[in-house]
Amino acid sequence: MSSTPLQDGAATGFRRMWRDLEVLGRDDDSGGYHRFAWTRTDSELREWFEGECAERGLDVTTDRVGNQWAWWGDPDAAVAAGDPGVVIGSHLDSVPDGGAFDGPLGVVGAFSALDQLRENGFQPSRPVGIVNFVDEEGSRFGVACAGSRVLTGALSPDRARSLTDRDGLSMAEALRRAGRDPRHLGRDEDTLGRIGTFVELHIEQGLHLVDLGRAVGVGSDIWPHGRWRFDVPGEANHAGTTRLADREDAMLGLAAAVIAARRSAESHGCVATVGKVNVVPGGVNAIASCATGWLDARGAEADSVLRVVAEVRDVIHEFDGLMTQESWTPTTDFDPALARRIATRLGGAPVIGTGAGHDAGILANDGVRTAMLFVRNPTGVSHSPDEWAAVDDCLAGVAALADVVSDLAGGGE
Amino acid sequence: MSSTPLQDGAATGFRRMWRDLEVLGRDDDSGGYHRFAWTRTDSELREWFEGECAERGLDVTTDRVGNQWAWWGDPDAAVAAGDPGVVIGSHLDSVPDGGAFDGPLGVVGAFSALDQLRENGFQPSRPVGIVNFVDEEGSRFGVACAGSRVLTGALSPDRARSLTDRDGLSMAEALRRAGRDPRHLGRDEDTLGRIGTFVELHIEQGLHLVDLGRAVGVGSDIWPHGRWRFDVPGEANHAGTTRLADREDAMLGLAAAVIAARRSAESHGCVATVGKVNVVPGGVNAIASCATGWLDARGAEADSVLRVVAEVRDVIHEFDGLMTQESWTPTTDFDPALARRIATRLGGAPVIGTGAGHDAGILANDGVRTAMLFVRNPTGVSHSPDEWAAVDDCLAGVAALADVVSDLAGGGE
Repeated sequence: MSSTPLQDGAATGFRRMWRDLEVLGRDDDSGGYHRFAWTRTDSELREWFEGECAERGLDVTTDRVGNQWAWWGDPDAAVAAGDPGVVIGSHLDSVPDGGAFDGPLGVVGAFSALDQLRENGFQPSRPVGIVNFVDEEGSRFGVACAGSRVLTGALSPDRARSLTDRDGLSMAEALRRAGRDPRHLGRDEDTLGRIGTFVELHIEQGLHLVDLGRAVGVGSDIWPHGRWRFDVPGEANHAGTTRLADREDAMLGLAAAVIAARRSAESHGCVATVGKVNVVPGGVNAIASCATGWLDARGAEADSVLRVVAEVRDVIHEFDGLMTQESWTPTTDFDPALARRIATRLGGAPVIGTGAGHDAGILANDGVRTAMLFVRNPTGVSHSPDEWAAVDDCLAGVAALADVVSDLAGGGE
Repeated sequence: MSSTPLQDGAATGFRRMWRDLEVLGRDDDSGGYHRFAWTRTDSELREWFEGECAERGLDVTTDRVGNQWAWWGDPDAAVAAGDPGVVIGSHLDSVPDGGAFDGPLGVVGAFSALDQLRENGFQPSRPVGIVNFVDEEGSRFGVACAGSRVLTGALSPDRARSLTDRDGLSMAEALRRAGRDPRHLGRDEDTLGRIGTFVELHIEQGLHLVDLGRAVGVGSDIWPHGRWRFDVPGEANHAGTTRLADREDAMLGLAAAVIAARRSAESHGCVATVGKVNVVPGGVNAIASCATGWLDARGAEADSVLRVVAEVRDVIHEFDGLMTQESWTPTTDFDPALARRIATRLGGAPVIGTGAGHDAGILANDGVRTAMLFVRNPTGVSHSPDEWAAVDDCLAGVAALADVVSDLAGGGE
């Protein structure tokens, strides 16, 4: 059995929200998005979230790091009764020149699911929450899922505050400039205690659902994945007058690491990527005195991923460089019983894994009962202006989400 | 016979000017300089130049592109008499995180040489000019010696105006923001006609003078050199969910080009450097959709340099990339008779070549009688905060410059 199709009101609302959002942070040349944590664009996105909540009579609270929460019903009464609520949502930030769906689909979808439930006259027996996680992509400060990691304590407040962006500005200072007090960072027990179950709707970043011919799927697990930063030292000098033999050119170590990452990933059946680099001083006629790169490595098997990282590290060491781990997340299994229950409810929806990290994974690793719903992506492309999903598939995802919430926040277990 | 040592006044003036300049555009962490064309720092440097001229009763004029000129004596009367003047000077801009000497030594040295001549009661029979060339390093817009190239027409006004900086701002717009009219760019015959001879004092960017045990040397020629930009295309996609086989990762082409440049330079006896790169979108978890690099290649033989460039281009083409020439300067010989005359006058100073480009080279290629004086650099390091010369060697360079001017602007030919 498939979920009830969306009511007209919920579908119309979805389209309106999508139009309102799509102008925020868009690069008109590429069509991609630049929505980074604690920037002016981010603050416009947060205001948009507040506006949608206000329209639905929901108050917005922020937790210690700044994730935004809105509740239909009283979450604390539910905690007191030992039966905490159901949270849906995702994030609104993007990678540099990212797509419109990764993140926003889950937030817009959450509002639309709530609209659908209300239009259907649903009366929740547990409170339903909507969340906008801040800084999921880590585009600005380099650590993905920073909002949910600080929330659970997986990222320590000291480390978070000291992370810096491309201009050397610390997260602490960025928070201050956005009107927040960085001293408040830290694991937030009150907020976590209110989450009985978390369900995140997300565009698929791959082709499983295309291959299976299905619009909606249920998440099984997230591959083990991590990020490592490496710094290769060099000696700044004139590019025209310094003999090759006298050079310490940091760029050579960077190039060797990029090539090693690809080769190792091939031989160990993983994926590895260097997508961000920083070369200092960065002059055309100056030999690089420092080259920094970030390695993103993932795979089905943690051992293989760590073998790739070790091989790249060996190359970095040959160039007297250093590699440091910025994050590492072992295999994350979403609640298997919950995944089965949702898949059955959605008429035998496929249960699929993913190589992408999500706030849902951070919560799952913290012991929260968590599930993910994926919407078909015809090209599999993500983190790009070309990321796209058909509106009918998105609405099918919203209908499925509403159905799952009606199950989880209804009378049953 | 060596040149007359500096008078106390000229030496004191040199030290004072050095102190006044050394705070402008300095990064207090690295000790290096960030002095880029048409920025606020550049405007402070230009004001400093005007102040030093005013102190000496010299009027400042700017040519069509914005190089600053100050004359002791009437340059146009000298042109009318068919016996144009002698110009000394250099530039005040820097590479990113550059040193204090490359450029400023020649400008400060020009003022001090003038002070020395006046203190000695020298009466010039030809006018003496001091120049501050703008944008010599090309740090902001990518083309070195942009000020002197526009002056001679070696860089066309249209191309100059359309060059862009890291933020996509065009030189035309940068000029406008600095209060200049970009429509004025173009070869400036009036200004060029006033230069009978140009002599540039500069720190050596190599170890010839150290090896020879001499404080000051005379330039013979500049190696052929050029800059090429290459762009490798890719397809932006998610670093975690895109199979290796499905990727078009622009970073791999960039890495291959960096390594090819080094290998080719080794095999052809040249130097080749990739010191500046730009990777788009630049996210840790996004596969690069475009990687841009700049190749700087030089050597004693033009054919060998061009062979290196061709080999790197072949690698770029393998990755479906494009390479475009941004500048190319063939071997530049300074006036050999003038170099011999100066070397003899300075007591048999060594005559040495260099791999670095200079405004003096641009003028020489335009047919101006041109010479360079080099000051010993104990480490050979340049384009780095570690660039340094002993003050006694700098003062010896200034004394030599004053001596050369007294010869060229005195009664003789």
